[in-house]
Amino acid sequence: MLIVGTVSNPATIEQPVNQIHTAAEARLAMRRGEWTGTTTHQLPGCVQANLVVLPAAEAFEFLVFCQRNPRSCPVIEVTDVGDPEPRFSAPGADLRTDLPRYAVYRRGELVEELTDIRHLWRPDSVGFLIGSSLTFDHPLERAGVPRSQVWVLNTTIPAKPAGRFSGPVVVTMRWMTPAQAVIATQLTTRFPANHGAPVHLGDPALIGADLEHPLYGPPVKRIPPEVLPVFWACGVTPQRVALAAKIEFMITHASGYGFVTDLKADEFCLP
Amino acid sequence: MLIVGTVSNPATIEQPVNQIHTAAEARLAMRRGEWTGTTTHQLPGCVQANLVVLPAAEAFEFLVFCQRNPRSCPVIEVTDVGDPEPRFSAPGADLRTDLPRYAVYRRGELVEELTDIRHLWRPDSVGFLIGSSLTFDHPLERAGVPRSQVWVLNTTIPAKPAGRFSGPVVVTMRWMTPAQAVIATQLTTRFPANHGAPVHLGDPALIGADLEHPLYGPPVKRIPPEVLPVFWACGVTPQRVALAAKIEFMITHASGYGFVTDLKADEFCLP
Repeated sequence: MLIVGTVSNPATIEQPVNQIHTAAEARLAMRRGEWTGTTTHQLPGCVQANLVVLPAAEAFEFLVFCQRNPRSCPVIEVTDVGDPEPRFSAPGADLRTDLPRYAVYRRGELVEELTDIRHLWRPDSVGFLIGSSLTFDHPLERAGVPRSQVWVLNTTIPAKPAGRFSGPVVVTMRWMTPAQAVIATQLTTRFPANHGAPVHLGDPALIGADLEHPLYGPPVKRIPPEVLPVFWACGVTPQRVALAAKIEFMITHASGYGFVTDLKADEFCLP
Repeated sequence: MLIVGTVSNPATIEQPVNQIHTAAEARLAMRRGEWTGTTTHQLPGCVQANLVVLPAAEAFEFLVFCQRNPRSCPVIEVTDVGDPEPRFSAPGADLRTDLPRYAVYRRGELVEELTDIRHLWRPDSVGFLIGSSLTFDHPLERAGVPRSQVWVLNTTIPAKPAGRFSGPVVVTMRWMTPAQAVIATQLTTRFPANHGAPVHLGDPALIGADLEHPLYGPPVKRIPPEVLPVFWACGVTPQRVALAAKIEFMITHASGYGFVTDLKADEFCLP
């Protein structure tokens, strides 16, 4: 049986995955090449994470960048240098095989997408698992805030720089009623490791978000008067910042193909 | 005028400090050598921090240790390598002069206490500011939880190790009524950068805390039946872990002589 939440586009699941009830089973299916589709809205209740793999020489400065920008870059785990096992959030997992798809960058340019990066993992590789707002979609639904279109938008809010890492904060935008925005603010406050509370409510222009040119999602001409846009810092921020720094070698999850941890969203409240 | 909260032991303030209304003024008085006393319960409302200064070679592993143990080691700021200015939490401040007293350790041994460390700061020095539970004493008082004796206790809870950094979680213990413990849990949840919510309520034996041999505070033979002990992770944890690792060279604040940031406790809610 395929365990799913509401799947908006089942066509993105390339293969049926049987008997998957836990995050560990999902990761094993990905490792075997049996799960090659998206993780978006799969395994509801499990904390999902974005992946960034960097050489150790860049790792301290990148971790300082994350520390300075906890809403954009909530760090769930940093692996030991050279060790592909995230032993606190997913003991036994292997970051080289247990995601459905990876993106490989050299000097800030995408060079390939792969389903296995064992041959690219180096003795100095460090994996960063960064919280994803996907994690709170399911709790929001249960609290009466239905899932809706999500936009990803650039802003003019500068992230706090650290060394060569700098750039604007990227946000996700969701629309909801003002009453739902209150619930969403209360609820996501409990998920600091998944971007936490909103960074902005209301007028996109106040944070320099250009709705006619989103990074993801359809262009918006006019916000309906009955909704309030709610903006969360987005895990795309550290990825774009690392790309802009033209790091010699970087691997990330491919967009929509995240890492599923053993952590339970409802329990994972920091600190 | 000296701005103080309730000072339990005014004798620890060696010199009267006039005209101090802000954190910046306090730091300047410390820099000039006019403020040489404790910071405990001074400048209520300002976020206070513990200081750890390490060589850059140890900084990444120590920051990973902090990331893995956010309740014991909530990082308020990491300075750029070699830069003594914590430019986000106290722009213009100088970590080499703006604390009243420092402790200098070599290979895990205390070698001296100083009021100025300019001559010891190195091009590879990195300053870590780590949240302190002192910050929430004042908000607790305003919420109806009176200040009381604080004990510092070792436990048998292992911190999550990172490389050479490992050891048990150290906690602070406060006694209060059960109703106050509920308020304290609610309120400190809002201060994740200052150890956040309690790690334990009730029986000290369940976390291996030995009340007859506290690290700080009077030995306790028997807990009065009308109170509930409440335990928070303590910033002494990272300091003891770094000492146990016998780091070649480390500087910390001297106990009770912390760093006063410009951050306001009531506003500083992460993330």
